[in-house]
Amino acid sequence: MKDKVTIGMYIDQLRGYDTSKMYLNDFFHTWKESDDEIAATFTVAEILRGLRENNISSKVFQSGLGISLFRDNSTRTRFSFASACNLLGLEVQDLDEGKSQIAHGETVRETANMISFMADVIGIRDDMYIGKGHTYMKEVADAVQQGYRDGVLEQRPTLVNLQCDIDHPTQSMADMLHVINYFGGVDKLKGKKVAMTWAYSPSYGKPLSVPQGVIGLFSRFGMEVVLAHPEGYDVMKECEDVARSNSLKSGGSFRKVNSMEEAFEGADIVYPKSWAPYSIMEERTKIVETGDKQALADLERRCLENNARFKNWECTEELMSTTKNGKALYLHCLPADITGVSCEHGEVAASVFDRYRDPLYKEASFKPYIIAAMIFLSKFKNPAEKLQQLLDEAKPRIK
Amino acid sequence: MKDKVTIGMYIDQLRGYDTSKMYLNDFFHTWKESDDEIAATFTVAEILRGLRENNISSKVFQSGLGISLFRDNSTRTRFSFASACNLLGLEVQDLDEGKSQIAHGETVRETANMISFMADVIGIRDDMYIGKGHTYMKEVADAVQQGYRDGVLEQRPTLVNLQCDIDHPTQSMADMLHVINYFGGVDKLKGKKVAMTWAYSPSYGKPLSVPQGVIGLFSRFGMEVVLAHPEGYDVMKECEDVARSNSLKSGGSFRKVNSMEEAFEGADIVYPKSWAPYSIMEERTKIVETGDKQALADLERRCLENNARFKNWECTEELMSTTKNGKALYLHCLPADITGVSCEHGEVAASVFDRYRDPLYKEASFKPYIIAAMIFLSKFKNPAEKLQQLLDEAKPRIK
Amino acid sequence: MKDKVTIGMYIDQLRGYDTSKMYLNDFFHTWKESDDEIAATFTVAEILRGLRENNISSKVFQSGLGISLFRDNSTRTRFSFASACNLLGLEVQDLDEGKSQIAHGETVRETANMISFMADVIGIRDDMYIGKGHTYMKEVADAVQQGYRDGVLEQRPTLVNLQCDIDHPTQSMADMLHVINYFGGVDKLKGKKVAMTWAYSPSYGKPLSVPQGVIGLFSRFGMEVVLAHPEGYDVMKECEDVARSNSLKSGGSFRKVNSMEEAFEGADIVYPKSWAPYSIMEERTKIVETGDKQALADLERRCLENNARFKNWECTEELMSTTKNGKALYLHCLPADITGVSCEHGEVAASVFDRYRDPLYKEASFKPYIIAAMIFLSKFKNPAEKLQQLLDEAKPRIK
Repeated sequence: MKDKVTIGMYIDQLRGYDTSKMYLNDFFHTWKESDDEIAATFTVAEILRGLRENNISSKVFQSGLGISLFRDNSTRTRFSFASACNLLGLEVQDLDEGKSQIAHGETVRETANMISFMADVIGIRDDMYIGKGHTYMKEVADAVQQGYRDGVLEQRPTLVNLQCDIDHPTQSMADMLHVINYFGGVDKLKGKKVAMTWAYSPSYGKPLSVPQGVIGLFSRFGMEVVLAHPEGYDVMKECEDVARSNSLKSGGSFRKVNSMEEAFEGADIVYPKSWAPYSIMEERTKIVETGDKQALADLERRCLENNARFKNWECTEELMSTTKNGKALYLHCLPADITGVSCEHGEVAASVFDRYRDPLYKEASFKPYIIAAMIFLSKFKNPAEKLQQLLDEAKPRIK
Repeated sequence: MKDKVTIGMYIDQLRGYDTSKMYLNDFFHTWKESDDEIAATFTVAEILRGLRENNISSKVFQSGLGISLFRDNSTRTRFSFASACNLLGLEVQDLDEGKSQIAHGETVRETANMISFMADVIGIRDDMYIGKGHTYMKEVADAVQQGYRDGVLEQRPTLVNLQCDIDHPTQSMADMLHVINYFGGVDKLKGKKVAMTWAYSPSYGKPLSVPQGVIGLFSRFGMEVVLAHPEGYDVMKECEDVARSNSLKSGGSFRKVNSMEEAFEGADIVYPKSWAPYSIMEERTKIVETGDKQALADLERRCLENNARFKNWECTEELMSTTKNGKALYLHCLPADITGVSCEHGEVAASVFDRYRDPLYKEASFKPYIIAAMIFLSKFKNPAEKLQQLLDEAKPRIK
Repeated sequence: MKDKVTIGMYIDQLRGYDTSKMYLNDFFHTWKESDDEIAATFTVAEILRGLRENNISSKVFQSGLGISLFRDNSTRTRFSFASACNLLGLEVQDLDEGKSQIAHGETVRETANMISFMADVIGIRDDMYIGKGHTYMKEVADAVQQGYRDGVLEQRPTLVNLQCDIDHPTQSMADMLHVINYFGGVDKLKGKKVAMTWAYSPSYGKPLSVPQGVIGLFSRFGMEVVLAHPEGYDVMKECEDVARSNSLKSGGSFRKVNSMEEAFEGADIVYPKSWAPYSIMEERTKIVETGDKQALADLERRCLENNARFKNWECTEELMSTTKNGKALYLHCLPADITGVSCEHGEVAASVFDRYRDPLYKEASFKPYIIAAMIFLSKFKNPAEKLQQLLDEAKPRIK
């Protein structure tokens, strides 16, 4: 728990970052944000957490809506978004249109405006289909931007990407803030080895945005980022390019291997998690468009059969013992497929998962604050001043 | 955007209206409200909008629930109601009972009381069946009135009609406030020609409350109101009578024609929109009560076949060019059936709709404020004083 | 309606009760709470009601979530919980996972933590299966306790039992507060006869938690508690033991009879209500676990057939006339099965129900305040001081 002096120091730190372009802007992919913007997001998250720990209200909105749109079942992200909105004083209003009713094109523009007359923020999760999620979010953002410019909307609701087909920034940022806290600061990360690796799961079609988001973000901190997966389980090339370019700039490295063992060897951080191959996800998107159910079932069967060849891609005690001092930090976005618990063969051995439960829950605990920070930075031109004011006034959250 | 001086002028104007009967009362149909009450609703809507534009909070409730009950899918009205409640400080709680579970009679009385212990307002949309929607709303209003009188409820929740089988006051009032703003004041409306006309749509069973609401309200402003539809597509006689009587009083006129061309000729405002004939809606209600699915399917087929005879009832560029200077204000409650966009043949040509998109969105933007004004006027005995207080205190909405 | 002086007297009374163990604790069963804790809950409920009647805000939370989880359809309890949260400043976030998705064991621990990062209270209704509901609530409570202890959660969300398989404390407490108000004080209850009796209903599988909760609570006030049901319709033995032991301590009595007539004879209070026999509920739970639909249908048929033998267990005018002066207070948790209204043969005659409608609605009106009191007492170490502060500040609920 941070005391008020520490919170003040974080606020001072925040003053040093240029966040001007975040104001009235959207948060799509971490790699579209500058280093200052990423650092500011972490810092604001820490400040908001600190305020709450000290029972200081950060309710900056007296009224206003935070609109959520989930095109996928969600409990964790839903509650994270609701918590973040509530922390700042926004009321969540869920747009529950079913997957089919909200078409693209004209309708998006209209719906986006119709729901935004009193919206300050819109959070969208749309991660199921390659080429769709981010495109949809852009359409919504463009629509409300135009509505704002044309005087239809009195305020510009900003958009937070709660997971698209490309990136999952609220997840990777929460993961990274956990890592920063665990290792004691950003400056401690240089040279650390992180293994983002595929792992076996008995399910099919898990989104790519987690591994893509992780390599896209973790590569900015001078770390040795290793992406491991069986042959054929590639992620989007664009994201690998981001990771490669980031690691060059940050003085780290990025490489790909086809062996979990190689990735784990000496790693400081491991992130074993299942995903579907990019090429399969592309194929699925095309099949879904045709509506051919037989083809979809065939693809699923084929994909599961192929997955089954890699049941040995599991985060076992043996593998963990090969990491740095046998004590790598184990990360997961949750829920994990735990061998012998949630399934027969899964991503991780029960004893490994058990040992890391507390750190895993703490990892997740950063997400509401990351989302709140993204909202905050998009809504205040001078965030440090505003946060200083909250700290000084020190209105109690619980009276 | 209104400055504070202008808001103050609106508040002064409000002082001149007698709103005493709106206090602790319901808003069912515009024609049950006096001219002062209608004018006050517009004025409070403008004031609340002005306050928000100036980042002044109009949160007058520290706690309290706004209960919504939608017996029909709804996005626009749902978000408008939620926005209005949120603006004033009420939290929306949706009563999602499914269509069948809430019966009429005894059960309505009980449910209405059970959900109202801390409710300040109840918004209901029940527009599907002739003779049902308004009846249901009256039952709810009577139940909570009785509960309040008998000491069961500590406060009298007031009811806002979010669309019934007879009127759609939040829509027609938003439409009219848009018209007032567009033409620069109520005093500019005298003698203007407004064409409320049927238009073709490939769907069936669209409610009558929009055209009924429009002729019932627009006829109060000395305008030349023309209702146009193919033979057989009559609206409720009661509503025509209201329009006729209103127009006599206001020095305007009301007439019916069976030609879109005649209605559009020289019109200042056009509102082309599909609806189902009153007689068909009555028949449908009876069939639904019997539960005869075959009869219902037959009715739908028959109705669509009949509709198809009037595909030429479309708001085309040609028709628009016959309006006043070729530039009539095009209105619609949205979503519209747009030819070549949302359907093959629809209510309006794509190019017409496109040209009016911004005004259409602005039209819609008034609805949350109209709803908020209705709530406000039902909850404050002296609304002008209360609004003056909000303006003077000028608490920021966003801190 | 209480004036401020009376509210102040209630606050003084509250100072005399030891509520220290309620702080950061859960409310599962009334019999796990001390007499002071029960009395404090009633008192805080009265104070919160008084504040609201005087338009004094009791919004003690500036932000925070109240999480609800209903494993059963619910309107009354849902709105009561939402009202209670809203009254105190918490925003309700519903966890709508469907009945199957939230498994027990590992998953409960994880989900409970994942939704609780900013939760101040969790309300759960899980009353369908014997041996399940309370067990589940305990698991959730243990999970968040552990999360709090381990630093995963910054605050300890407290749990309110909104109905489990064993007790329905928010119902029985609301019932009792109504009784206390009706008879003019707790001191007036000594020696009063209360008949908690089974009644016929054409439905099957109604939970046992209402009769169990009533005998478990009402037996604490020196009353003559009579539990009446047809042979075989026993409630949980544990709950009978609680009632027996309570009545011994309180100087009252508890006895069981197999005759509605005997129970009603001279009764001051009658609570005729249907429930399923404990043994049947146990059997049903086991069958549900096996997934055997045929066995389930057989059980239902058998149970309904058996019920039908006791159609004469109805609260008629004749029976009412045998109560104390023919004017016993009639209680029900609602909705009731009313003969000739909601069913052919039911729990109560229409004329009896009709005469008691207002008192019944008032009975229900206490529930939101009881829930709010439970939340309040779990969140403030010194509740009297906090309530005094609210009374002194007297911030208006409606501005």
